[in-house]
Amino acid sequence: MQFKVTHHCPSSGARCGEITTLHGSFETPVFMPVGTQGSVKALSPEDLERTGVRILLANTYHLYLRPGHRLIERLGGLHRFMNWKGAILTDSGGFQVYSLSNLRKISEQGVTFQSHLDGSTHFIGPREAMDIQKALGSDVIMAFDECAPFPADHDYVRNSVRLTSQWARTCLECHESGAQALFGIVQGGVYPDLREQSARELASLGFDGYALGGLSVGEDRETRQRIVEGTVPFLPAEKPRYLMGVGKPEDILDGVTAGIDMFDCVLPTRNARNGALFTTQGPLSIKNACYAEDDRPVDEHCSCYTCTHFSRAYLRHLFMAKELLAYRLNTIHNLHYYAGLMSEIRQAIKEDRFTDFRRSFLEPPER
Amino acid sequence: MQFKVTHHCPSSGARCGEITTLHGSFETPVFMPVGTQGSVKALSPEDLERTGVRILLANTYHLYLRPGHRLIERLGGLHRFMNWKGAILTDSGGFQVYSLSNLRKISEQGVTFQSHLDGSTHFIGPREAMDIQKALGSDVIMAFDECAPFPADHDYVRNSVRLTSQWARTCLECHESGAQALFGIVQGGVYPDLREQSARELASLGFDGYALGGLSVGEDRETRQRIVEGTVPFLPAEKPRYLMGVGKPEDILDGVTAGIDMFDCVLPTRNARNGALFTTQGPLSIKNACYAEDDRPVDEHCSCYTCTHFSRAYLRHLFMAKELLAYRLNTIHNLHYYAGLMSEIRQAIKEDRFTDFRRSFLEPPER
Repeated sequence: MQFKVTHHCPSSGARCGEITTLHGSFETPVFMPVGTQGSVKALSPEDLERTGVRILLANTYHLYLRPGHRLIERLGGLHRFMNWKGAILTDSGGFQVYSLSNLRKISEQGVTFQSHLDGSTHFIGPREAMDIQKALGSDVIMAFDECAPFPADHDYVRNSVRLTSQWARTCLECHESGAQALFGIVQGGVYPDLREQSARELASLGFDGYALGGLSVGEDRETRQRIVEGTVPFLPAEKPRYLMGVGKPEDILDGVTAGIDMFDCVLPTRNARNGALFTTQGPLSIKNACYAEDDRPVDEHCSCYTCTHFSRAYLRHLFMAKELLAYRLNTIHNLHYYAGLMSEIRQAIKEDRFTDFRRSFLEPPER
Repeated sequence: MQFKVTHHCPSSGARCGEITTLHGSFETPVFMPVGTQGSVKALSPEDLERTGVRILLANTYHLYLRPGHRLIERLGGLHRFMNWKGAILTDSGGFQVYSLSNLRKISEQGVTFQSHLDGSTHFIGPREAMDIQKALGSDVIMAFDECAPFPADHDYVRNSVRLTSQWARTCLECHESGAQALFGIVQGGVYPDLREQSARELASLGFDGYALGGLSVGEDRETRQRIVEGTVPFLPAEKPRYLMGVGKPEDILDGVTAGIDMFDCVLPTRNARNGALFTTQGPLSIKNACYAEDDRPVDEHCSCYTCTHFSRAYLRHLFMAKELLAYRLNTIHNLHYYAGLMSEIRQAIKEDRFTDFRRSFLEPPER
């Protein structure tokens, strides 16, 4: 994986760059939709390409449990399995082990947990996380971390930072440098001193990129922004920075301002399946009765397949009737919106007007 | 609507023809997938076109209840509402009133029933059925009939034939000849004398086409075939014949043998959503564990999007994980299979080898 910074915003930490993988290049800041189980829900690979997606995230925890990483490896890896020609980033499984599984027990070696699918017992530590992600064959893999719960006291988080650094070293030892880029994950909760410590320790180990984990887990927006802005300076400027699990359009703008290059979140896809659509005029809930006879597209400024082919009235009908097509059309629209937002952000950075863009987005003159 | 017979099978009642509507032409025998609520479940209009679909069926009963025919009319009709450029046939609502609604009460004027959605009371008779279908703007509309339950005694069915003929006259009176073709529906249960009577009465009224209703409701295959073969001779040869709600590939071959030109059934689409796929090698249940690591396409002889892009292993994973993409990919495959079957049937008729084709399909040498 290659990364180069191509432009710096003169009045914020925002920057543009380009990442090149064995599965194509893309510009940053970039948003990665989530394909939890090896499918971005309701979309085909062609749908993703058409909405402008060049890199997606898949969940190691889910694919490990079902259908199994060895099965995917025997079938030629995740790209071939799901027939996706673009890039793939897999998370380490850590976050899902803590948030989805039952009866987890953390030791110095890793985490023992019960599957949320069938209650079976499993163990994932740094070695296993590297092994699983190698089998999946993703372009970017993540080090195994301990994501502290929120809230957690300073002592708990200090220990989680210690474990995360220890596991990061093990991940690097197991990692064969080659086709897969390995990112470290900075932990430290909402404690600036621990975030600094975690960032410094990981940076000294030398990863291909650095993620900020354990955010967007309950803390408020100001706290998150303070933590992100306080952490970025301790990460090497020549490596990509990835803010995990974020987020809302305004949160992405915050992250970009702080110098973040990569984002992922289930928000646009999950919201789409709940009928909550993003538009340039603000949010639109397609089940609202006011759209029953509305012949306009979801967003009159949108060029996505959904907006160029179907009315709000039809989309509302599909949603109310629980027609499967509703989920696909809504998801295409929301991902197109996110791709457009990221494209506008990059253009604004390149033209040295990002802070103006951000201000007018967050406080639109008339909305 | 224009219909012309282009070829007759020398050794059976099978025939090829061409139907031309304001929304395109297509060859017969034709299979119409079912888009109950104004959407063939899980597919976009482009998906349908790509699988070779040129005409689909939509359900008057469902669209009348939700979103309402007047709403669809105000939005420019069903074609525009669902953005479908091909032809549409709507049923009369009769069958669903009998099979889905509660507390129905049949009078000489029509049927009072309670909505399966919210229990509200509605009335549909022949005038209402014509009015609703006119509002929907479908290319082919169906007369309102009384579909007798199965089994039903001779007296009951005789009365249902009487009502159906009476309502057929009312439908013709209300129908403005023009863009929409109106088909009559032959009833008569499994009684040859009543089928003959119904067919003769409807034929004397002069419809644009004739359907056989009230079949595939529980009678065995031999009985159905006897009824179809016994009824067709009383229908005008120059008009299309439509066997409603049929069916399985073997039932379609039976119908074609008897001279049927049009078919519809939820089977390929519903089976797809249950993981039951049609292949040239016989049925395939994608959830079967034997496909977990099967790298082959569903059908190695199939050129559909699903078979040219995804393995059985991936389709099984999607199905087991209840991923929405599974329903779309499976449906594309099954409809492609049906389109291919109909194309092969037409080719065989044109080349005077339909009875051989039918025999080898029903009794394959090695399967």
